Amino acid sequence: MLSIVGVGPGDPALQTPQVTQALAEAAHLVGYGPYLDRVPPRPGQQRHGSDNRVELDRARHALALAEAGERVAVVSGGDPGVFAMASAVFEAVEAGPAEWRDLDIRVLPGISAMFAAAARLGAPLGHDFCALSLSDNLKPWDTVLGRLRAAAGAGFVIALYNPTSRARPWQLGAALEALRPILPPHTAIVFATAVTRPDERITVTTLANADPALADMRTLVLIGSAATRAVGRWLYTPRSAA
Amino acid sequence: MLSIVGVGPGDPALQTPQVTQALAEAAHLVGYGPYLDRVPPRPGQQRHGSDNRVELDRARHALALAEAGERVAVVSGGDPGVFAMASAVFEAVEAGPAEWRDLDIRVLPGISAMFAAAARLGAPLGHDFCALSLSDNLKPWDTVLGRLRAAAGAGFVIALYNPTSRARPWQLGAALEALRPILPPHTAIVFATAVTRPDERITVTTLANADPALADMRTLVLIGSAATRAVGRWLYTPRSAA
Repeated sequence: MLSIVGVGPGDPALQTPQVTQALAEAAHLVGYGPYLDRVPPRPGQQRHGSDNRVELDRARHALALAEAGERVAVVSGGDPGVFAMASAVFEAVEAGPAEWRDLDIRVLPGISAMFAAAARLGAPLGHDFCALSLSDNLKPWDTVLGRLRAAAGAGFVIALYNPTSRARPWQLGAALEALRPILPPHTAIVFATAVTRPDERITVTTLANADPALADMRTLVLIGSAATRAVGRWLYTPRSAA
Repeated sequence: MLSIVGVGPGDPALQTPQVTQALAEAAHLVGYGPYLDRVPPRPGQQRHGSDNRVELDRARHALALAEAGERVAVVSGGDPGVFAMASAVFEAVEAGPAEWRDLDIRVLPGISAMFAAAARLGAPLGHDFCALSLSDNLKPWDTVLGRLRAAAGAGFVIALYNPTSRARPWQLGAALEALRPILPPHTAIVFATAVTRPDERITVTTLANADPALADMRTLVLIGSAATRAVGRWLYTPRSAA
């Protein structure tokens, strides 16, 4: 049995009881080191931590353990189906031995970073929105830009995942530049880093003033629509945003 | 104090401990009747159930109770920030008395219907995706169609909320028609109804064969991208979908 679980954004109070139970029942935990560190240790349980750019290796390792009869949990931050391990596992199944298709694989959802960030702010995703990975490791940069322009032009609020990394230092700046002809200068931009964790840092600014240096690898960037606005200390997008 | 909480898709094992605690501490629960029915009764707690098309009345009622010093929880299904009560509450704050801006309002995230449905299926949201309400109650139908075409044309997987209702019987059929010139006939379409509840019903079909009659008010419709595909009994979108 292989469970692909989402431990949420960080605060244990945001992890579902279903995930807590699956983690307690697993003999092997497989995942990116910092996500494994969020799971309380349990005697007899083996941990297989890895770096964050080896998703397919990690998926194959977990599948091989499950094929050998072990109870395995693949640990993702946020929701495992959102720019996380669920897709990587099914890619590995597709390319792997036929036996892997008969495994008992379950995906257990979690609170995604975008929902945790939105909740802290108010209701910025209160109308139509999209989630877009800014990484051009697995798709061409022109595809990223095309999606960004299409979404902004059509009035979606945008949650940008993977905005930056050491290997991708210029993409967020280029993305903000690409939005300037499409969205008004006062459009709300949010940099939400390590949401619900002790070092949480949230900055609300505008497209005119947004500084890409506010983002690091743990940051979710929210881009409002023209209708996204402040009320009191909250940020929200009305349901009628047309 | 006013908490706007998401109880998730239905299965209590998908409700976060944070929400469970907020519900236990509230003296008043305000929400759409069927969502309140998911919360176990507690002595001394008052329930204010209402119909599903009076969101602003419900929001004002909750804010007035909170202003009077009561501990109030507004109960949403799924996540409260996704086509649910959080936006309605901030709309009411914006239009209401200045005192409402000083209330202690917290939004507590939940597992959205689209993440629960995706988890059941595999990883159909495994790449860039958007969430779009098909309701034209609060925005023009042309805006809905424009967003649908923009998202499909740019390669987003699409989660369609509010696909149909007694007052909106033809919109889903028109939406599928609008997609046929844009997406291939074999594009995966999923009708996911009452996900994680006892009467859950999930149908996976194609754009060529999709029958709008499979949707009711409790259905989430997922529209794959051209890259979304089956592997074994799962449906997934690879991370590289370009």
